[in-house]
Amino acid sequence: MEWLIGARYALTPRKKLTNAGVVVEEGVIVEVGDFEKLKHKYPRYERIGGREYLLVPGFVNAHTHVAMTLFRGVEDDKPLNAWLREAVWPKEAKLRPEDCYAGALLGCLEMVLNGVTCFLDMYFYEEEVGKAAKEVGIRAFLGVGVIDFPLPDAKTPKEALKNAEKLRKKGYRVVISPHSLLTCSKETLEMCKEAAKGDVIHMHVSETEEEVERVKRKYGKPPFFVLEELGMLEKLVAAHATWISREELRLVAERECSLVACPSAAMKLSYGRVVPVVDALNVGANVCLGTDGAGSNNRLDILLEGREILLYAKNAWGAESLKAEQVLEFMTSTGAKALGLNAGEIKEGREADLVLINMDKPHWTPCYDPCSNLLYASLASDVDCVFVKGELIVEGGKHKKLELEKVAGLVEKAKNRLA
Amino acid sequence: MEWLIGARYALTPRKKLTNAGVVVEEGVIVEVGDFEKLKHKYPRYERIGGREYLLVPGFVNAHTHVAMTLFRGVEDDKPLNAWLREAVWPKEAKLRPEDCYAGALLGCLEMVLNGVTCFLDMYFYEEEVGKAAKEVGIRAFLGVGVIDFPLPDAKTPKEALKNAEKLRKKGYRVVISPHSLLTCSKETLEMCKEAAKGDVIHMHVSETEEEVERVKRKYGKPPFFVLEELGMLEKLVAAHATWISREELRLVAERECSLVACPSAAMKLSYGRVVPVVDALNVGANVCLGTDGAGSNNRLDILLEGREILLYAKNAWGAESLKAEQVLEFMTSTGAKALGLNAGEIKEGREADLVLINMDKPHWTPCYDPCSNLLYASLASDVDCVFVKGELIVEGGKHKKLELEKVAGLVEKAKNRLA
Repeated sequence: MEWLIGARYALTPRKKLTNAGVVVEEGVIVEVGDFEKLKHKYPRYERIGGREYLLVPGFVNAHTHVAMTLFRGVEDDKPLNAWLREAVWPKEAKLRPEDCYAGALLGCLEMVLNGVTCFLDMYFYEEEVGKAAKEVGIRAFLGVGVIDFPLPDAKTPKEALKNAEKLRKKGYRVVISPHSLLTCSKETLEMCKEAAKGDVIHMHVSETEEEVERVKRKYGKPPFFVLEELGMLEKLVAAHATWISREELRLVAERECSLVACPSAAMKLSYGRVVPVVDALNVGANVCLGTDGAGSNNRLDILLEGREILLYAKNAWGAESLKAEQVLEFMTSTGAKALGLNAGEIKEGREADLVLINMDKPHWTPCYDPCSNLLYASLASDVDCVFVKGELIVEGGKHKKLELEKVAGLVEKAKNRLA
Repeated sequence: MEWLIGARYALTPRKKLTNAGVVVEEGVIVEVGDFEKLKHKYPRYERIGGREYLLVPGFVNAHTHVAMTLFRGVEDDKPLNAWLREAVWPKEAKLRPEDCYAGALLGCLEMVLNGVTCFLDMYFYEEEVGKAAKEVGIRAFLGVGVIDFPLPDAKTPKEALKNAEKLRKKGYRVVISPHSLLTCSKETLEMCKEAAKGDVIHMHVSETEEEVERVKRKYGKPPFFVLEELGMLEKLVAAHATWISREELRLVAERECSLVACPSAAMKLSYGRVVPVVDALNVGANVCLGTDGAGSNNRLDILLEGREILLYAKNAWGAESLKAEQVLEFMTSTGAKALGLNAGEIKEGREADLVLINMDKPHWTPCYDPCSNLLYASLASDVDCVFVKGELIVEGGKHKKLELEKVAGLVEKAKNRLA
């Protein structure tokens, strides 16, 4: 389908365009310019948007466990280890593929309604996540979890890697995802590196202070130096990186490695801080944003994570330390770069993952700066239209095909079975 | 009008009711019970709500400057003093009554759409705020600002207090609001105390660390001890109280004094922390929630402040330190208590300030605990119906009378004039 999208403002994200027009052909942005001019050049293209809209690139959720949307609100008041041991693991032990499908379907639906067009996952039964994402129409990078314990779909790391290979052969976009430096042996990590074949690797790194101390005792050096030694830093997407040191930040900045700040989850699970984003930017490291699973957030809303990291940074490092414009890049272009995705920007040649935000709301008034209103004042429900690869998935804030009722029914069934 | 409101869950806030029915006559809750039973007892009452709804008391925004909604997004990246000096004061100097009216109308509309049924303000031209609140149908406690500098509507503190008296005589609910211990002399504070006649007083206290140090130098003791000496602690609603000490918390807990946490504004303006809520609860002090002005937030959304204080507290003081149920009380019953308002609870005899939340959303699924979903996962846009004193002000997420277009037009005019 061919589109001419119009918007009062567009944030590319680096530049602010006014009265913007964006032309999409076969899923790709072919021209960006003045709407009035493009109207005459492409008179027959399907028009959408208008003067009450802001156009931004689709948001990238660079770390989640989407099937865990099943566990939203399960025992909120526990720190990470107790929460995992007492609330999550007993339920996870009972998970069947159809439960993961239900949780993933719900999570994907929530995400795309929130303007997320692409996510990087990490879990098991990833084929179910892939199927759910396809049904919803969102891009999924299926992080096949690898860990030195039996998983519901893989008794050994080797089996998990075989599953990954099978999934890849079926045409899914697979990302090898060793769980962490403490839950994977050196041998497992080496197998993962080999299986990744130079592609993106996804991993929890330096999530808690305790984890960092234990890694130091095990390996005699901090986590990111261990990963450097293992040759795993290039193309690593490191979730959390809460307790990364300045020395590690400098190292990370030299590699093609990305850090995923998950501020809501880090705060809720009491990690004591979030990625030191300001230091990270100072040395030139890539920072993207993730929601983590809905079990520990409890939303899958990258806009909210953007607000959260801004408030956290301003409080911790000063009111001038981080700006809305920078965070919009975390949410879009930097996230896309981390995944090697040809999207995340409003630019000729990029694939058309785009979001129209309806600014015709009291909380968008007045509008001194659309980027400020987007990050500080908007709600996920302001997301009106969402395109993935040029296909209109969400219109008027509603998914064009999927009914919540059906999804909620599947989730309820899974919830009852896991109770 | 007589209502029978039905809801899958109601949070009173202390208790969770299932399949709840609430009967409202002439603005007052007359019965709370099982919906099916009440249906037979009150067959002719107008029914609203249903199984997809959660019913909660209306939210109380215990600190704002609602006319400042005009300044949403004006220079976000400045610390408090620079922001005031460089961004706010030059605009405020040009404010006319009609500008304050426009800003207040917008802010009141935003608030009521977010489930806020009552707010405590602090500014000048408060009659304009009162008029706007009346038009919107929200309860306003008009905090008439008193400060030792000329204000647009009062050259001296005496004149401000005269304005307050005039407003009160016109039937408005007025709250004497000395600006702070540094911007009001002892004499001004004593005049304010006298003018309040034992009623609620509203004041910024211990907002920044620097302010506390300056108060200590000026008075030889910390701010809340100064207020105790002045006899102003009883019925004080102290906005921010960011840097309150443990000794002051113990004192505050002995008085009928309330602290208003404004977490988003405190973080955005880099105060370095928020009210130590956990210590405050441990000694039994009243904690309520406020948004502060939209200039420094940039939302007027008490639900979001609830989430923010939870995440902040968990990160700072542990995952078990603060619970959603406690924060719901801050937002409702404690806020009402601070203002001496016979509302904030779903209980026979309370005035019917009530909010129906639509849970039929992906981010509300699954629902292990409605209070958890409300605080961690919901959006202000889930607010579906809002009653103030039994009058239905918002239905289906829309204000029943007011058009945004009209309000936005007034705001745009003010914005252009102040540019």
